[in-house]
Amino acid sequence: MAPGTLADDVLRGDVRAASRLMRRIDDAEPRATEELRALFPRTGRAYVIGITGPPGSGKSTIVDRLVAALRKEGKTVGVIAVDPTSSFTGGAILGDRIRMQGHATDSGVFIRSLATRGNLGGLSRATGDCIRVMDAMGRDVVLVETVGVGQDEIDVAQMAHTTVVVLVPGMGDDVQAIKAGILEVADIFAVNKADLDGADRVVRELRSMLEVRRAASGSPHGPARSHSLAGVRPAAAPDSQWEPPIIKLSAEKDEGVDKLLALIDSHREFLDRSGERKARERARAAMQFITLLRERLMRTALEKLEREKGRLDDVAGRIAERTADPYQLAEEIAGELGG
Amino acid sequence: MAPGTLADDVLRGDVRAASRLMRRIDDAEPRATEELRALFPRTGRAYVIGITGPPGSGKSTIVDRLVAALRKEGKTVGVIAVDPTSSFTGGAILGDRIRMQGHATDSGVFIRSLATRGNLGGLSRATGDCIRVMDAMGRDVVLVETVGVGQDEIDVAQMAHTTVVVLVPGMGDDVQAIKAGILEVADIFAVNKADLDGADRVVRELRSMLEVRRAASGSPHGPARSHSLAGVRPAAAPDSQWEPPIIKLSAEKDEGVDKLLALIDSHREFLDRSGERKARERARAAMQFITLLRERLMRTALEKLEREKGRLDDVAGRIAERTADPYQLAEEIAGELGG
Repeated sequence: MAPGTLADDVLRGDVRAASRLMRRIDDAEPRATEELRALFPRTGRAYVIGITGPPGSGKSTIVDRLVAALRKEGKTVGVIAVDPTSSFTGGAILGDRIRMQGHATDSGVFIRSLATRGNLGGLSRATGDCIRVMDAMGRDVVLVETVGVGQDEIDVAQMAHTTVVVLVPGMGDDVQAIKAGILEVADIFAVNKADLDGADRVVRELRSMLEVRRAASGSPHGPARSHSLAGVRPAAAPDSQWEPPIIKLSAEKDEGVDKLLALIDSHREFLDRSGERKARERARAAMQFITLLRERLMRTALEKLEREKGRLDDVAGRIAERTADPYQLAEEIAGELGG
Repeated sequence: MAPGTLADDVLRGDVRAASRLMRRIDDAEPRATEELRALFPRTGRAYVIGITGPPGSGKSTIVDRLVAALRKEGKTVGVIAVDPTSSFTGGAILGDRIRMQGHATDSGVFIRSLATRGNLGGLSRATGDCIRVMDAMGRDVVLVETVGVGQDEIDVAQMAHTTVVVLVPGMGDDVQAIKAGILEVADIFAVNKADLDGADRVVRELRSMLEVRRAASGSPHGPARSHSLAGVRPAAAPDSQWEPPIIKLSAEKDEGVDKLLALIDSHREFLDRSGERKARERARAAMQFITLLRERLMRTALEKLEREKGRLDDVAGRIAERTADPYQLAEEIAGELGG
């Protein structure tokens, strides 16, 4: 093996090498791909936990507490905080957020924020790649924290073995919609800030939504779960179903976090016992493949348009003036690309 | 012109035809494209206003009040509420939300929720298509409300002429990150629930973030604005810059909404006066084209994998077992597609 490649250093657990590679991933540098390919055969060992939910729900505090609990068990931890910040303001903001400073001197904890400055699906691809880097460097557990509840977050949740959806009381009427969107990806619901008024109401609402789903589908992960990737994540057999538990906690006061970790462990055991883990690995693989393929196709298309100087500008101008229609142009250019 | 096509009916302003077409768009039915192509030359007249911001910030109430104010001016209005709900739970949820019932009997107001059950960029494409339907049916103003603050929402914001970003006091520490992510797309900041503690602090924070940006770039829409579509949305000339105003309001009490509408009008005038409107039309066109192209490429790719029975399953299995690497496979399959 050629000495000194970034991939070799990552495989030895070198934090600086991993940081450098993840920066390249975040910047969408093409040369990151060679390193990722070298790492890939050595991935698949880490347990990936997704923590998602609306802004202000205290996800960072929960992640912080989970890290502390996992460290007590002697496990090494990687944390990927997906941050919808721009390249411009990202630095200052991340500096302001004294993120989990309690773990700053613990070499068993490796924290990386993803600024995801690209778009067009780049977030999912970059997150998947960073999970693989942390996996390859030997982290036992990788925690992925996503801000927001958009489709990207749902894609990312499908890259986790266990997805914890965090909710809080009093988020206004949008919460109804949010709950529905994340119902499908939740393995565990955590109602944080449980001392606030309305926590029990959130629990009740979740419970009745889960009941409605169960009644309608006969399976907690039935028709809904696979909506975004038809058939890729199969429903478990009826006798080996996972019913997403709902837990109240108060991460700020460190109340309930141990119980949350115990539920995550139960879910992991369920995945192993039921054979669902293997099915989920395939679903994760399909999701990761599709995000890579999508980015690859778009990159090729945009590079082609860029090489033909002014082509995108020309296309935009013709559409803006209504002298060409975008459907036809997309068809034509996809055709030129062989699609 | 052949009578009776859906497109003809939409062009006559038929609400039921428009509803039917938008349902097809939401369901990603391929036959919607022919109708959209027929409509396209007749679009470009509506003024598109995006309302975005985190959950619980009261966007729906603001939209409701804006609709009332626009109706008083005699304008016809279309509202697209982008809802991250799944097909499974969507119906019940939308039924529960008695959305803007005050306008239910006003034919000058047409409201449509987009469930966006697909993913992989389908949300942006569907939203863009629905904007064009409302435009083609002759609505003077189209309001697009997006829940959440993910990349999809940023893409959608780039389809609007004027984007209003709504914030509220007390959203927790994630707000810092969110603010950064939406700074680039905001033409107007609306701090809602202004009677709550902390509203002035949000205004101050926004103001200082805008100052930092101005100092660093010399232009309020300089390097940050174009991060997602390099160069497509050009910065305005220095003497014709738009400085995003910050307004406090209390939509629930109908306080400040008239002023918000006046600011939207000012921004529209600015766009016309500065020539920025034309630039933005091109940026919108480029964004719409790219979302269409992306979906088209992915659809072709996934259909191809599906036609070759079990190919995606096979790919997923090999990746899950680490006998093939997803980077190589994405490269190969993109190559087969001519990319």
